[in-house]
Amino acid sequence: MRHFLTTEDWNEDELQAILDRARALKAGASSSALAGKSVALVFFNPSLRTRTSFDIGIAQLGGRGIVLDARAGTWPMEFTEGAVMDGEAEEHVIEAAQVLSRYVDMIAIRCFPKFQNWNAEKKDPLITAFAKYATVPIINMETIVHPCQELALMLALQEKMGQVRNKTFLLSWVPHPKPLNTAVANSALLIASKFGMNVRMLIPDDVYRLDDRYMSAAAANCDDHGTSFDVMTDIEAAYSGADAVYAKSWGALPFYGQWEGEAPYRAKGGGFMIDDAKMALTNNAVVSHCLPMRRNVKIADSVVDSPAFLGIEEAANRLHVQKAMLEAIARDMDAG
Amino acid sequence: MRHFLTTEDWNEDELQAILDRARALKAGASSSALAGKSVALVFFNPSLRTRTSFDIGIAQLGGRGIVLDARAGTWPMEFTEGAVMDGEAEEHVIEAAQVLSRYVDMIAIRCFPKFQNWNAEKKDPLITAFAKYATVPIINMETIVHPCQELALMLALQEKMGQVRNKTFLLSWVPHPKPLNTAVANSALLIASKFGMNVRMLIPDDVYRLDDRYMSAAAANCDDHGTSFDVMTDIEAAYSGADAVYAKSWGALPFYGQWEGEAPYRAKGGGFMIDDAKMALTNNAVVSHCLPMRRNVKIADSVVDSPAFLGIEEAANRLHVQKAMLEAIARDMDAG
Amino acid sequence: MRHFLTTEDWNEDELQAILDRARALKAGASSSALAGKSVALVFFNPSLRTRTSFDIGIAQLGGRGIVLDARAGTWPMEFTEGAVMDGEAEEHVIEAAQVLSRYVDMIAIRCFPKFQNWNAEKKDPLITAFAKYATVPIINMETIVHPCQELALMLALQEKMGQVRNKTFLLSWVPHPKPLNTAVANSALLIASKFGMNVRMLIPDDVYRLDDRYMSAAAANCDDHGTSFDVMTDIEAAYSGADAVYAKSWGALPFYGQWEGEAPYRAKGGGFMIDDAKMALTNNAVVSHCLPMRRNVKIADSVVDSPAFLGIEEAANRLHVQKAMLEAIARDMDAG
Repeated sequence: MRHFLTTEDWNEDELQAILDRARALKAGASSSALAGKSVALVFFNPSLRTRTSFDIGIAQLGGRGIVLDARAGTWPMEFTEGAVMDGEAEEHVIEAAQVLSRYVDMIAIRCFPKFQNWNAEKKDPLITAFAKYATVPIINMETIVHPCQELALMLALQEKMGQVRNKTFLLSWVPHPKPLNTAVANSALLIASKFGMNVRMLIPDDVYRLDDRYMSAAAANCDDHGTSFDVMTDIEAAYSGADAVYAKSWGALPFYGQWEGEAPYRAKGGGFMIDDAKMALTNNAVVSHCLPMRRNVKIADSVVDSPAFLGIEEAANRLHVQKAMLEAIARDMDAG
Repeated sequence: MRHFLTTEDWNEDELQAILDRARALKAGASSSALAGKSVALVFFNPSLRTRTSFDIGIAQLGGRGIVLDARAGTWPMEFTEGAVMDGEAEEHVIEAAQVLSRYVDMIAIRCFPKFQNWNAEKKDPLITAFAKYATVPIINMETIVHPCQELALMLALQEKMGQVRNKTFLLSWVPHPKPLNTAVANSALLIASKFGMNVRMLIPDDVYRLDDRYMSAAAANCDDHGTSFDVMTDIEAAYSGADAVYAKSWGALPFYGQWEGEAPYRAKGGGFMIDDAKMALTNNAVVSHCLPMRRNVKIADSVVDSPAFLGIEEAANRLHVQKAMLEAIARDMDAG
Repeated sequence: MRHFLTTEDWNEDELQAILDRARALKAGASSSALAGKSVALVFFNPSLRTRTSFDIGIAQLGGRGIVLDARAGTWPMEFTEGAVMDGEAEEHVIEAAQVLSRYVDMIAIRCFPKFQNWNAEKKDPLITAFAKYATVPIINMETIVHPCQELALMLALQEKMGQVRNKTFLLSWVPHPKPLNTAVANSALLIASKFGMNVRMLIPDDVYRLDDRYMSAAAANCDDHGTSFDVMTDIEAAYSGADAVYAKSWGALPFYGQWEGEAPYRAKGGGFMIDDAKMALTNNAVVSHCLPMRRNVKIADSVVDSPAFLGIEEAANRLHVQKAMLEAIARDMDAG
């Protein structure tokens, strides 16, 4: 039995096999890999694409998805072992994970960090506890990484660029009115580096460096592939010659949960919106974003509405990569 | 490919064909018109009947409905082209419509106006934007019109009255503690006039006249059929000889979003609840309401609980007319 | 046609037949008892297990569950006959029950009391009104009793203990930071007494006596079986020789809705958490709880994590007993 918590646990060949199968499914291959199986889709945060694509993908594989809204529809949950539960939480993950495991065949979870304490939240405690106590596979629908989005992005890049190895991938911080979760940024570093791309991360200031866990993992992947990994603050240098640009906004970790102090650093990124002038510096790059995306704040309309924009295709790919991943998980269960 | 945004886009024969098919489905005809197809049901507002009847109807046609709660379960959405999205909205309809189109075969939307600016909201901007950017059919589950309710009402009238042509249909404003959306009132005018009924609209004061778009459309339909269209403020005259009474409450458009000023006009309608005395003036009329309905505020218990009341049958018809409409939409897709 | 509102309406043989069928279903028996049927699952309160187990169980029986969130997703509902509906409620149960009956084949409802007026709420007015006006069976997913939980508990006891007759069942009040619904406590008395167990209820003070309806029903069941029914405040006496311990917290009815006055009585139960010392007094008893459960407040980790704890199995049994109950209801409909 195997979880799908982070692509760090899966090697490049395994992930490429999922991507290859996703292309076949996208081309019309059918599958009944989940016939008679059900999957709980547990959402602690809003979702449009994830919920829809999981629910439909599961149905297309012959299974049944059960959407559980864990914010309003269920009980607050504790995940600390030994806790004296005299606070808000009515239920411990120990019980929730065991009971759901008796009802369903897989449990998929979306749980963003709460912006309270990065040292605690960087350990991804809720999904980690689920993985420990559940007796069925746990699937990550976005926590502090977003592995399904990684696969969808990589499929979109491969579809458009063919071979991505040794191409240059630029992850650019972009403006947003609020500090956001770092999950998709962490994930972009992981997947681009794992598939042998030269990776650049463009940020307005060093305070926007991502957590060392992901920076180190990306650097190690690049070492393995003999590719480069660079953190940059110069816009022109970062865009110059890039083959793929990926936009994401996130909050600076040194100000995690106390965001007031971040304002002057955020202001330094005021000119980081992706526009035609920046794209002109690239090697005719493709550009993408995970959606939802604020137009004319993160990326200018003229770029979004150009053929270079892969965001819709990336989102569409969610359906197919998730079906391929669910098939792989189900195959491991049946073999187990 | 054809949308179902408003009955204004469908002629009487097309709508009658849907109603005839609905009667067959209600009588037990089966259909697999949506086999292998999925429909996103996007709700920006509460729903009991609409959600249940769509979900079950889609399942009975062999398809899969995906309910998306767009208030809490997804992201706030922008629909203005060229918007600099630095406010609340995290997502533009341009992306949402395109992405959902890649996952599902049809998109049904409920989106009431926000009571902020009728000049903007009368253009039904969100569903209009979805229809522009989606690549699959868009279905209206109530915006500023409620075409599914229209069909359910007309089917109930035809079941009870047989031929409705030249019969007299009275839309009566009725009391309610709050100003409500005009959608069902607009729709009542549209459908009664389109099917050749004499149409009367009873309101406490001219401030309750509906938007000119719907008043004009109803008048034009009546002209085509040689029937009458009258706006009345006299209760006795309005009920006198009516064959069908339809109750609805709505807010006065001149006070749209600034409802304080409406109070004295609303007070003029204090006696507009439908009761036995008023019904006694009619030509043994049937009476209906779209539900939910405040008893003893809009309609007296004695009328609701009488055989003249068609509200339950109208609501039950939602299931059947929607199935027939979805079949028609699916047929157009397959032919396209 | 038969409702499933409370086990009081079903005799021991009927309930045992459901439990026997549940064991067969748990062992792998398949059934298409709900083929072509749909069930509305109406939630006025949060749910994890109930929602998931009903939805999946219905699907496994070939049917379709429609989850309706009646707090946020639908309209507030009135249930008093003759009400002038000028308050919050937009819809009367009379209409909601009739309309849902036209769409679905069964209606399951979760509706906790509102902690406003026990004399009114003890009559379970909302589900009672649904049962009166619906034309399809109504199923209780927890109101002021929780009959599905009763069946799951009794199945877990029978699985573990074999014959339960004449064994001693202890319902113990346990601490919790908030006053809770008495439903599961009422239900524990009903089911243990109905199946011939000696029943003890341990409470910190007489103010925690349950409503007379349930106390009397339990006493009458015990009379029928020649078993004992005792209300106790002495921890040692209550645990001594018990064969099964069931934990539940609830608010004291004399302070219903005005809980401030309950504080000194609640303090008297400060030592009522179930721990190893108390369990050592029993006849090697099993222990259970309905979940969600606050660890180290209601039951100590060491007890929860011991083999004596049946809470996970009880929760898992929800799926199977509900399927068996739905089968029984469907059989009555088809026979009707």
